[in-house]
Amino acid sequence: MTSDADSVITPEAAVALCDAYLTGLVAGDLEAVLALFSPDAVVEDPVGSEPQQGMEALRAFYQIACDSVSEAERVGPPRIAGTDIAFAFTITIGSAPNAMCIDIIDVFSCDSAGKVCGMRAYWGPDNMRAAEASR
Amino acid sequence: MTSDADSVITPEAAVALCDAYLTGLVAGDLEAVLALFSPDAVVEDPVGSEPQQGMEALRAFYQIACDSVSEAERVGPPRIAGTDIAFAFTITIGSAPNAMCIDIIDVFSCDSAGKVCGMRAYWGPDNMRAAEASR
Repeated sequence: MTSDADSVITPEAAVALCDAYLTGLVAGDLEAVLALFSPDAVVEDPVGSEPQQGMEALRAFYQIACDSVSEAERVGPPRIAGTDIAFAFTITIGSAPNAMCIDIIDVFSCDSAGKVCGMRAYWGPDNMRAAEASR
Repeated sequence: MTSDADSVITPEAAVALCDAYLTGLVAGDLEAVLALFSPDAVVEDPVGSEPQQGMEALRAFYQIACDSVSEAERVGPPRIAGTDIAFAFTITIGSAPNAMCIDIIDVFSCDSAGKVCGMRAYWGPDNMRAAEASR
């Protein structure tokens, strides 16, 4: 993708990016997750919390995520609006019998190099549930 | 909900709001859809297009949507982050054999009265498909 206003992210690139993110979290592969972001990226997770900016802040933030997420499943296709990608997914954190699922929608804003320069995660306490409970 | 920073939208209120929006679109009930918005609401649909602000602009925009949407299905629970709600859904527009499905994620920002004061819709051409095709 380029910085041209008419450029769009391809569906294949969007799927690859979203799934690399989720796969990295599940694998606990902090470097793989961080490699998806631009050096000055801003992460607001959840929306309403203090945004984290820059690789040092993201490293601390995603270390916790990498240590917590045991499963992740994307739900439906990434929605692509110009250089923004929104996608729905469910993660599992912790382990049985106390595992929890969280239903999340992330919005990635991508730069001209295809890196995530902004991320906003929509979820709250009401989106957490016991892993075995129905949605 | 209130304007207090600690207030949150309940899951029931979020489901009711999202489903009233989709039901209104399918029913072609323009007034019901508009009633969900504050008078000065801003709608950016899709994200990257010219934002539409105010009831007159929204009336023109949603008239087209009400005339087009024949089916709508929410996919998964609304994600609630403070006063923002993100939700995934699929709409069907047109009629067989030319009906199209569009996979969309909307983000509603709600005001203290529970009205939608901001809406951003994430979708693009790659999220459109023939109604009978698999996702």
